[in-house]
Amino acid sequence: MTFWTTYPQLAKQLDIVHDTMTGAIKVKNPQTQQAILSLLASGGKMLRPAYLLLFSNFTTLDEDKKIALASSIELLHTATLIHDDIIDKAETRRGVPTISHLYGNEVAVYAGDYLFITVFKLMIKHALDMSNLSKRIDAMETVLNGELGQMNLRFNTKQTISDYIENISGKTAELFAQACAASLFADGQMILAKRAYDIGLNIGIAFQIMDDYLDYTAKSQTFGKPVLTDIKQGIYSAPVLFAIAADTKVAELLAQEAYDQIFTIIHETDALDKTYALAKKHTDIALKLIHKLPDNPVKSDIYMITKTLLERQL
Amino acid sequence: MTFWTTYPQLAKQLDIVHDTMTGAIKVKNPQTQQAILSLLASGGKMLRPAYLLLFSNFTTLDEDKKIALASSIELLHTATLIHDDIIDKAETRRGVPTISHLYGNEVAVYAGDYLFITVFKLMIKHALDMSNLSKRIDAMETVLNGELGQMNLRFNTKQTISDYIENISGKTAELFAQACAASLFADGQMILAKRAYDIGLNIGIAFQIMDDYLDYTAKSQTFGKPVLTDIKQGIYSAPVLFAIAADTKVAELLAQEAYDQIFTIIHETDALDKTYALAKKHTDIALKLIHKLPDNPVKSDIYMITKTLLERQL
Repeated sequence: MTFWTTYPQLAKQLDIVHDTMTGAIKVKNPQTQQAILSLLASGGKMLRPAYLLLFSNFTTLDEDKKIALASSIELLHTATLIHDDIIDKAETRRGVPTISHLYGNEVAVYAGDYLFITVFKLMIKHALDMSNLSKRIDAMETVLNGELGQMNLRFNTKQTISDYIENISGKTAELFAQACAASLFADGQMILAKRAYDIGLNIGIAFQIMDDYLDYTAKSQTFGKPVLTDIKQGIYSAPVLFAIAADTKVAELLAQEAYDQIFTIIHETDALDKTYALAKKHTDIALKLIHKLPDNPVKSDIYMITKTLLERQL
Repeated sequence: MTFWTTYPQLAKQLDIVHDTMTGAIKVKNPQTQQAILSLLASGGKMLRPAYLLLFSNFTTLDEDKKIALASSIELLHTATLIHDDIIDKAETRRGVPTISHLYGNEVAVYAGDYLFITVFKLMIKHALDMSNLSKRIDAMETVLNGELGQMNLRFNTKQTISDYIENISGKTAELFAQACAASLFADGQMILAKRAYDIGLNIGIAFQIMDDYLDYTAKSQTFGKPVLTDIKQGIYSAPVLFAIAADTKVAELLAQEAYDQIFTIIHETDALDKTYALAKKHTDIALKLIHKLPDNPVKSDIYMITKTLLERQL
């Protein structure tokens, strides 16, 4: 977890989150158990639990509850990754082979299902009340509907940037929004929770745009995920949409699967600059909202981490 | 729903359950929405909600809560069917094409996930309290661990009938047990709930054994599910296990994929008689326990339906 070396206190908490997640996995099938544990061990930046823990400094929740909430949000994220990898027929994730690739769809479907149930168990154990729990489930529905909404627009070259933002709001940003707001909701601080939610939403939107940006700039081996997977499956992210707007040939080239030419156009037009500017716009909204948070030693950490995400190379 | 013509009151309630399920499905992706609705429309016997409604006559729950509980158990069953069909690469279900076959694994994975979330939403809305909800989630984990446990024993010719019973207890019978017990748990009648649970468990075990029995006796077209799917995937049900015990050649023939010969042995030995006897044994346990239920007009219906399940041809 080198990402967090400058935040030793947070790094320590994230280690406990990691142990809590690992301890929550008790699958009867040894292959599935091992597959989930390997995926958890392969890391990832653990951004969502990190934001949850950072924002929990504004609450009166005890440490156990904070850790449980942080674990449940990362487990939910992990469950969606496993099912996404089935759908994308992805062979690697975070540079290691995916569960579906290693053990087949069978293990991957059940592993994801199992994690969903584990998430619910953690949620129920630590939810404030039924109404709070109900809101968390609605959020899960939003995440899933984001994935499903994305399917509607596949191979649609007429979709707008605002369609794209709506999709990534559900698919990616909702989980960041929940990460920022969940502890405040659980603490009954509804007004601050709503503000934290908006911060998380913009962080998540910026994060996904940067992900899509880096797909076209980072090297495949560094990124740990094959570039072009999305475009071949008809998922047109910001760089592609800006290229379509810049050059009318692009829509046609997509139909012809002339990916090399599209790549060249993305790099030769202003498509990547506009993509970066869009990510910066949403980062700036988040930073302004973070600035308005109540005074707390953790405020500057939240600010710096959010800024760093825009500047990351992978 | 011709299965229920002799129980007009129950048939009417099951129609409402059907409408409730249909109304709960609000997927943003039209293809997935349609796929789920088609599967619900294709019917099935709705045994689990039927048992839930029958046992709910022993409670003081209002009609809305009964219907919601019945809908959530059938939606959970439907979710597992959709994911099972991905895993089994099944092309048909209830005589109609499966979601995974029609629209691909993509739609099927998300459709199942979406139903899981819908189930949780219904559960939360109607659970007695957090502790009751927590028990329901544990039950979902048991069902999933049953599926996962089954994977451990694939292609294992040394597994015993008691391994088989343990597996189907999780995979199939737990949901029947929950169907019988859920309304009583929600009504706070813990002792009667425990008895209803045991009744459901034995009904479910008998039901799965009969399913496996009919795989080898019913015609494929009537049964709506290709015979031999299980055996080719290394799932050895009671008829196969009894054949292995009756004839030492069977284990070897399985390795050689000599299914025709195995079929002949299953029919020429006592394998099918022993399978039927095992289903009868668990039906009889259930019937004895039903006999001991408190007096209620619905008691004889529960008794007769359970008896009929043993005698069904499909």
